[in-house]
Amino acid sequence: MKPTPGNQPTDPLPLAQALIRCPSVTPADAGALGVLEAALAPLGFACHRLRFGEIENLYARRGTEGPHFCYAGHTDVVPPGEQGWDGSPFSGEVRGDVLYGRGACDMKGGIAAFVAGLTDYLAVHGDRPGSISLLITGDEEGPARDGTVKVLEWMAERGEIPDMALVGEPTSRLALGDIVKVGRRGSMTAWITLFGTQGHSAYPQRADNPIHRLIRVLHRLTAQPIDGGSEFFEATTLQVTGFDVGNTANNVIPAEARAMLNIRFNDLHSSASLTEHLHAALRTEEARYEMRVECSGESFLTSPGPFVDALKRAVERSTGATPALDTGGGTSDARFIARYCPVAELGGVGATMHKVNECVPVEELRALAALYRTVLEEAFA
Amino acid sequence: MKPTPGNQPTDPLPLAQALIRCPSVTPADAGALGVLEAALAPLGFACHRLRFGEIENLYARRGTEGPHFCYAGHTDVVPPGEQGWDGSPFSGEVRGDVLYGRGACDMKGGIAAFVAGLTDYLAVHGDRPGSISLLITGDEEGPARDGTVKVLEWMAERGEIPDMALVGEPTSRLALGDIVKVGRRGSMTAWITLFGTQGHSAYPQRADNPIHRLIRVLHRLTAQPIDGGSEFFEATTLQVTGFDVGNTANNVIPAEARAMLNIRFNDLHSSASLTEHLHAALRTEEARYEMRVECSGESFLTSPGPFVDALKRAVERSTGATPALDTGGGTSDARFIARYCPVAELGGVGATMHKVNECVPVEELRALAALYRTVLEEAFA
Repeated sequence: MKPTPGNQPTDPLPLAQALIRCPSVTPADAGALGVLEAALAPLGFACHRLRFGEIENLYARRGTEGPHFCYAGHTDVVPPGEQGWDGSPFSGEVRGDVLYGRGACDMKGGIAAFVAGLTDYLAVHGDRPGSISLLITGDEEGPARDGTVKVLEWMAERGEIPDMALVGEPTSRLALGDIVKVGRRGSMTAWITLFGTQGHSAYPQRADNPIHRLIRVLHRLTAQPIDGGSEFFEATTLQVTGFDVGNTANNVIPAEARAMLNIRFNDLHSSASLTEHLHAALRTEEARYEMRVECSGESFLTSPGPFVDALKRAVERSTGATPALDTGGGTSDARFIARYCPVAELGGVGATMHKVNECVPVEELRALAALYRTVLEEAFA
Repeated sequence: MKPTPGNQPTDPLPLAQALIRCPSVTPADAGALGVLEAALAPLGFACHRLRFGEIENLYARRGTEGPHFCYAGHTDVVPPGEQGWDGSPFSGEVRGDVLYGRGACDMKGGIAAFVAGLTDYLAVHGDRPGSISLLITGDEEGPARDGTVKVLEWMAERGEIPDMALVGEPTSRLALGDIVKVGRRGSMTAWITLFGTQGHSAYPQRADNPIHRLIRVLHRLTAQPIDGGSEFFEATTLQVTGFDVGNTANNVIPAEARAMLNIRFNDLHSSASLTEHLHAALRTEEARYEMRVECSGESFLTSPGPFVDALKRAVERSTGATPALDTGGGTSDARFIARYCPVAELGGVGATMHKVNECVPVEELRALAALYRTVLEEAFA
């Protein structure tokens, strides 16, 4: 992609369309990373295609010195769904100044905007010190095992860990740049089995009903909020998502009861402290139990500082409004990057992501490219 | 069965053995009622074989005038189980003065004891006014649909409702006659489905978790006893015997949750009042729910009075001890008879009922026959 002659900004639309036309439903790449590589190589990026398992990834860097700014994203998309689309989900067509297609906002449009923005940045500031990289995976919407995590390990081995990273997820709520995500809640799931003593429901004194005990435990865990939130985070939430016994005999007190619960937690907690919280609630019953816990991501927060300040200034210059620092919503690959360097998320308005007729106004796409150009100016200022 | 010459009491053992040798596992009759009919007819009983569905029943009455004393019981037995018996479960053999076999105590032994007892009663008091009947079903251990219920309807149509009824279930706890059951708790089962709004566990504010609501309802229902018992009854018990959701996705708040609960209730409640109690607990959630209730028997109590007094006197005369009036334990066909007339339960010690190597000491069987003879003397006194 070449900068437009004169002072015309580079249009992200053609690259966005080319990416959408690759039906890269996880884990398929369908040529998407090749399209991106072809756009980056002429700009001086050293491109590394990294395949882990069945997943294609791309790490591309221009320059070798610091500071190192990394843009992280993904070319995989969720399935389009069976029906309801006006036109093909992979046509990338523009109707009424709106670009339609799976990935238009999550997040092929964002990638195209970043490439357009950096093109214009380099046209003016190509001689500034520092380097720009893109960490693009094909496994963000899937299990997230063979994508960003593995690429980061590869980068760490080569000493390529960036000084700051921006994830281009469509985090804006109502207007472009109204939200900068500076952290995410953690997420963990616990599977509990509580054991009692089977018996006849006519003689409960001779049995030990594990359902009653589990109800008490879960009532204790859900009756009060775990916390009231923190400076940058909403309150931690605990949701019981499963409760199963599998007994069909109405006169039998069963021997065991099972529950599954999911916790989204802020920076006041870790999965370890919450695991202990669950054990403490279970121990009050003095009954035998088993609990398995899986944490899909600890909570993280990129504290206010030079990087977050640069992003705020970029949004203010580009949109005229001051962004809110936010940590809400589900997980993204930022949780993996946070283990290595300051990371934030800033992208378009994601109103239609994962929905039928996913789309982005072409003007928003162009405004996002201008914002990303400004981000680079502020990050390297 | 003829009274033994002289003052020797009639031995119930041969009839008990003959009954045990019929493998009358519900719904099979296997000749058991024929054995009984053959014993009763020579004593002047008018026998009516009543078949309902696949169930054989016997109603036999001697005499037509009041007072009418009815002995109720069943010849069907629970399956012997696959293994563990010393000898055949249907051999009816006596080893070491103990009679072994399925039904020895529940309740072919009791029926044989009653026939022996009435034989001796009639030998002395055959000219007293009143009539004696036996209501014997083959469907007590099964669904109890085509047995006592149907025979009672048939009796009611013919104006044969007794003035008092004794169910010969093995109700004694430690020593013969230590317990007279004068009532039974009721039993009801409720199936509840509570509806919420499905959603993502990361955004619980956009969903409505039916598991949390159902936990609150069930915690409310189980945190406090429903009552503290009444003069003749233990406390009412509520046991949650099922809780199922069927959701396996840890990040999904499901749309509905289901529970099953069983209540054993005393004479302070009816199934209707408890159904309203459940509705009241559910209504506090202001959520949509469905509830289905089945009552397998209301609670009943045969209040102290002439019939219960006669039974107490009979036990005292026959055993020297005063029986306790009790209402504990599971259901029996007495719950059906209670709709028509005063009913109580008095029988042998049921320690081995439904177990492997079910048995009764021959001496206990003979003592039970003597007790039943005394019961008739007191009932017709």
